[in-house]
Amino acid sequence: MVAVSEKQVMEALRYVMDPEIHRSIVDLDMVRDLQIDQSKVNFTLALTIPDCPLRDQLARDAQQAIEALPGVQQVDVRLGAMSEAERQAVLHPAPETPSIATHNQIHKVIAVMSGKGGVGKSLVTGLLAAALAHAGHRVGILDADITGPSIPKLFGVHGPLVGGQDGVKPVQSRLGIKLVSINLLLEGEDQAVIWRGPLITSAIQQFWKDVNWGELDELLVDLPPGTSDAALTVMQSLPISGILLVTTPQALAAMIVNKAVMMARSLKAPVLGIVENMAGFVAEDTGHRYEIFGPSHSDEVARLANAPILARLPIRPALAAACDAGMIEMAEAPEMISVVQALETVSSDAGTLVGVS
Amino acid sequence: MVAVSEKQVMEALRYVMDPEIHRSIVDLDMVRDLQIDQSKVNFTLALTIPDCPLRDQLARDAQQAIEALPGVQQVDVRLGAMSEAERQAVLHPAPETPSIATHNQIHKVIAVMSGKGGVGKSLVTGLLAAALAHAGHRVGILDADITGPSIPKLFGVHGPLVGGQDGVKPVQSRLGIKLVSINLLLEGEDQAVIWRGPLITSAIQQFWKDVNWGELDELLVDLPPGTSDAALTVMQSLPISGILLVTTPQALAAMIVNKAVMMARSLKAPVLGIVENMAGFVAEDTGHRYEIFGPSHSDEVARLANAPILARLPIRPALAAACDAGMIEMAEAPEMISVVQALETVSSDAGTLVGVS
Repeated sequence: MVAVSEKQVMEALRYVMDPEIHRSIVDLDMVRDLQIDQSKVNFTLALTIPDCPLRDQLARDAQQAIEALPGVQQVDVRLGAMSEAERQAVLHPAPETPSIATHNQIHKVIAVMSGKGGVGKSLVTGLLAAALAHAGHRVGILDADITGPSIPKLFGVHGPLVGGQDGVKPVQSRLGIKLVSINLLLEGEDQAVIWRGPLITSAIQQFWKDVNWGELDELLVDLPPGTSDAALTVMQSLPISGILLVTTPQALAAMIVNKAVMMARSLKAPVLGIVENMAGFVAEDTGHRYEIFGPSHSDEVARLANAPILARLPIRPALAAACDAGMIEMAEAPEMISVVQALETVSSDAGTLVGVS
Repeated sequence: MVAVSEKQVMEALRYVMDPEIHRSIVDLDMVRDLQIDQSKVNFTLALTIPDCPLRDQLARDAQQAIEALPGVQQVDVRLGAMSEAERQAVLHPAPETPSIATHNQIHKVIAVMSGKGGVGKSLVTGLLAAALAHAGHRVGILDADITGPSIPKLFGVHGPLVGGQDGVKPVQSRLGIKLVSINLLLEGEDQAVIWRGPLITSAIQQFWKDVNWGELDELLVDLPPGTSDAALTVMQSLPISGILLVTTPQALAAMIVNKAVMMARSLKAPVLGIVENMAGFVAEDTGHRYEIFGPSHSDEVARLANAPILARLPIRPALAAACDAGMIEMAEAPEMISVVQALETVSSDAGTLVGVS
């Protein structure tokens, strides 16, 4: 592997947050005098407050972020301090235009995540939203899967989303679930969105800030596979109350879902529980049960995440048919009741999370 | 939705290639005097040659890229020309250090793509590589799924990848298939790679340029879900001979795989054929066949892609077990023979694609 580049180091450090200011140390201009000599990296971390009690933790976080890059053998972090002028500039930047949707009252934001694709994140998000709505909750779904959005098709809804002075108005499902998805902005549902990361980040932030969600008990965020831009943006710029992990029985799935667990841990986002999808298939004619994807490895995920398995959803051909017909709200999934109950125990301790990032 | 930003416009234009120079018009510094007034965007396209015969097509491509952004109503592109000095600077930049792996001789590069996650891209990649190896081909797999890499686990191989003067040496499978994956560089297989797009791009480019692949008949590139950074990087910086699309029977899958077809079309990459995975389940005890994910919608994908369905793989519990055990090379999948035959008809017209991007 060739030597690590300055760009790679700065990108890696972008994910290191100042624990008090809750912004990236790169955005805060804290990384100074970066030097790279083959596999050795060293730089000065210019602290906003020289005797910040969390400085050692921050230096360690930065060191680990760089050590994770391929080709890096040694990382030295020197501690320094900003001048008073610099400090003022980064801590009190020019005010941004206020977001349209500061009047949103969203009590809990739940990210539905997996790491692995095709395990049924959107299915679980849709079934859970329907179960919450049946229980009398006010629910919204923010479809954060920009390149592979499934939510509108599952609910059989169509765009376009319409904007006004009070922000963009979500589309409503039959049960009154508020839905926002990039597919509600496209001319054709199979039009491709060929965007690199920064545009994906910006779309998700707009779905959060510029949408008139109103008052919601729960906003479910349907994440795409992977631990890259979309997941990072959601975890870093939305006030996540907790994460629901979706997995399937296969060991291969467990391995990749575990990456999502590691990501949640490193970003300090709590995992509320796990939903196992495609947990076997029961033939209707004979009643025989088949473990078509092999025996379950979800307990490994639960152990690593230190969180309970809240539900196991078997494969139901009727469910696939309901999804393809845009009727997910009408599908039966009694297993989701335990997930609803688990969410009810989550405190909406922020009281009201307003829609600003 | 708020007005589009300059950053969004420039990101969108980054995907527009000069048809002769094969580089992004943004990298070529052809976008000048960009002005944004609410939903209206206008700029000058500074051509390298004023009377370039493809200028109208290029202007139209740029216009369409911007029109696809949410919030854009009108786009005006003025045609201009670069000065001779500017032209020399962009056309003859300072030479880059040559890549380590210029001695690679790779006859065909096949991207295995889907758009949708969890449809079995890695499974199909692995089975195809094994079938090619059995047919006497020299085969490699570049695992371009950086945040959810499955290839090493399927083949039961472990890292670390070791570098030397001749580049990074791939790990070899039992059948001699050469494998490169980010998971061969990580300490633990479930360690998360929490990277935004630019790092993912850079990792994939290194896997192409800095790996000593030697001579290969086919290099299979296993893409992650989505139509974002990884897919873009592979299509724009690797000399792709063709794309193999993987889908499952569900209409929802077809819709999202169609996005991959649209992406391939807009980037002018040929689709060689389609593999349908999870095409029904046959119970071993009763012989009954169940369409557990509903009737097939893959013909829609084939029609849109204007490409044949090369194989339909049923769900085989034994296959899932072989994958979980790292024994994919030992699994039976006679359906892949027709895919091997289809690949043999693809001309390796570049003769030898050397490993430089």
